[in-house]
Amino acid sequence: MTISPLAPQSFAVLPPLDGVRMATAAAGIKYEGRTDLLLMRFDEPATIAGVFTQSLCAAAPVELCRANLAGGRARALVVNSGNANAFTGRRGSEAAQITAQAAAAAVGCGAEEVFVASTGVIGEPLDVSGFGGALGTLADAADADGWMDAARAIMTTDTYPKLATGRASIDGVEVRINGIAKGAGMIAPDMATMLSFVVTDAAIAPNVLQTLLSDSVGDTFNAITVDSDTSTSDTLLLLATGAAAGRGAPLITDAGDPHLAAFAEALHGLMKDLALQIVRDGEGARKMVEIQVKGAASDAAAKTIALSVANSPLVKTAIAGEDANWGRVVMAVGKAGERAHRDRLQIWFGDIRVAVDGERDPDYSEAAAAAVMKNPEIAITIDVGVADGASTVWTCDLTKDYVAINGDYRS
Amino acid sequence: MTISPLAPQSFAVLPPLDGVRMATAAAGIKYEGRTDLLLMRFDEPATIAGVFTQSLCAAAPVELCRANLAGGRARALVVNSGNANAFTGRRGSEAAQITAQAAAAAVGCGAEEVFVASTGVIGEPLDVSGFGGALGTLADAADADGWMDAARAIMTTDTYPKLATGRASIDGVEVRINGIAKGAGMIAPDMATMLSFVVTDAAIAPNVLQTLLSDSVGDTFNAITVDSDTSTSDTLLLLATGAAAGRGAPLITDAGDPHLAAFAEALHGLMKDLALQIVRDGEGARKMVEIQVKGAASDAAAKTIALSVANSPLVKTAIAGEDANWGRVVMAVGKAGERAHRDRLQIWFGDIRVAVDGERDPDYSEAAAAAVMKNPEIAITIDVGVADGASTVWTCDLTKDYVAINGDYRS
Repeated sequence: MTISPLAPQSFAVLPPLDGVRMATAAAGIKYEGRTDLLLMRFDEPATIAGVFTQSLCAAAPVELCRANLAGGRARALVVNSGNANAFTGRRGSEAAQITAQAAAAAVGCGAEEVFVASTGVIGEPLDVSGFGGALGTLADAADADGWMDAARAIMTTDTYPKLATGRASIDGVEVRINGIAKGAGMIAPDMATMLSFVVTDAAIAPNVLQTLLSDSVGDTFNAITVDSDTSTSDTLLLLATGAAAGRGAPLITDAGDPHLAAFAEALHGLMKDLALQIVRDGEGARKMVEIQVKGAASDAAAKTIALSVANSPLVKTAIAGEDANWGRVVMAVGKAGERAHRDRLQIWFGDIRVAVDGERDPDYSEAAAAAVMKNPEIAITIDVGVADGASTVWTCDLTKDYVAINGDYRS
Repeated sequence: MTISPLAPQSFAVLPPLDGVRMATAAAGIKYEGRTDLLLMRFDEPATIAGVFTQSLCAAAPVELCRANLAGGRARALVVNSGNANAFTGRRGSEAAQITAQAAAAAVGCGAEEVFVASTGVIGEPLDVSGFGGALGTLADAADADGWMDAARAIMTTDTYPKLATGRASIDGVEVRINGIAKGAGMIAPDMATMLSFVVTDAAIAPNVLQTLLSDSVGDTFNAITVDSDTSTSDTLLLLATGAAAGRGAPLITDAGDPHLAAFAEALHGLMKDLALQIVRDGEGARKMVEIQVKGAASDAAAKTIALSVANSPLVKTAIAGEDANWGRVVMAVGKAGERAHRDRLQIWFGDIRVAVDGERDPDYSEAAAAAVMKNPEIAITIDVGVADGASTVWTCDLTKDYVAINGDYRS
């Protein structure tokens, strides 16, 4: 598979992070000659928070994670690629439970301290009969240096592994954050799904982790779209090993704690980095597109409008054709159902204002706009002229390759 | 342009209809060598009802129609193709007004009795300076036999003209209904937009016409989608000349009048016929798809789910690839946000049940499902297992040709 032309020039190098070790294996779930099973284990119980798909047909592993999140503690995370264990009925729930029990036996913890994620083919039973032995081996082999291997093991249609790392000071003590992600389509339930696992050695209570995650997900992972299709399996987990407490970092138990500010900012940056890496690997993508809406009735209204533009097949095909087709942007604003002042609407492609005061900008140069559209990264800015609401989302273009990837085969 | 492989085998032949005459001209708005201007005139004031785009950036002609609809009477309808007169600011409103005034002068009525629709390029000023002379000529030339010419004059990216005719008895008197439509994409604001004009010689009060139209639009024109993109210009007008009163037909002033039942049924059939002709001309379409959802919490919930499936790029590309990919259907059900019982969900492609009780149907034959997917017309049935709500929508597949039509050019 060809690596996306929008891929980062280099991969982040993730340092070891105190309190977490990992290992991967080739379990032969679907793929030949590559890893497809990841065990991440925590030396002491990590605190954990999560955000999941809003699909009403969520996969069995999502249900297991939601249930176990109530305890707020994790000793192990098991991720497999090649099979999503979604729409697999009662047997699917059993497979997720068996996986958790096997991991619990391997690392010596309760099954309710294990979190599970699966990505790949939907509707196929997931054979976990070999997981017991494999997880035992992985538990023994786990070490602190496996982040790149971990990122590779969870890939499906991804053309490159997605990693990010950050650091922040909490009350004078440096802590680290490492994250991996996969996804290449907002999601394609055959072979994709958005998964991300972020780990820090900071010491943070579960409810604070959940607040941090919820605060940052809206304008990062929930502000990207490739094709508007939402997986049955999307899973984002944030874990804190607390190992930095051994270096003097305080335990944060209040989301309003001022010591948390730098960490929250670093976490947000890391989540945005990973989210944009997913868009850059969008199926068939040749252009990365940032859509900024301002002047809306509220921030939420701005996001609705921005997503309407980002998900419009006509806007996305125009971008693929390097066509500064602002008429389609007007169309997508109009169909969003949020207030927009047609006769005050302004639209920019890059720095080129193409529309103003409800019509084509009289100073608009087709040549200048065309030059913008040739870039691999394109910013579209829309002022809807109502109030002060603003939001930014990211997407990619819709190319024939997207149709080929998703249509040129029989399942 | 190649005619859609899904086009009807033959075109309906529309008989003259008492009280309405029409003519077309090549006004050179954008196209060379074809007609692009239609005048439809009514010998006596026709009653009129309308349904329009819900876009908040509606085009100037839509605003004019909405305003004139308050009077409930029409003497003339002017439609141009090649330019949508959308997002054209104050000059656009003036152009629509000038058009109405020119038609009023040509047929001898008030400007408030003229209705206007435009379809084509968005954002370009519409030059109406020649409309006065053209409309005068058309008013003189108008005759009762111009339906096919009318259907051709309003086409943009359509690959064939869309016509339908029906008849019904009102209190023993036969009345006729003729309709034309255009659209080839739910809409593409460059070159498309859904327009439909339906005329009957029945005598029906405007408020009753509006009720009839509103009752029938939900499961006809509002149950089709090509690409989920809503035009700034969608316009559906229903006009009644009342000429059948001369043959003894009663004036219907009450939507509950039992004499109206057969007419309402015929109108509904004609609207559905035209709506499906639009889907069959969907940009790049190779497959016509009927999506029937049942077992939903309500009919409205069923429609939301059906549209989620119909608009999913992953479902539509799978259909293009003749792939019975029910996992993507599950995904689209799950993301719709309406209640679905994951473990009672059933899915059929044609007569082949592929999923039951929350997992792959154990009796499912891939070969049989694959055979269904090779057909040019495919029915997908989904029972979400919650209650009795049901809805049917129609769409087409998403092909590389759609991307080519909408992306392979510079504006």
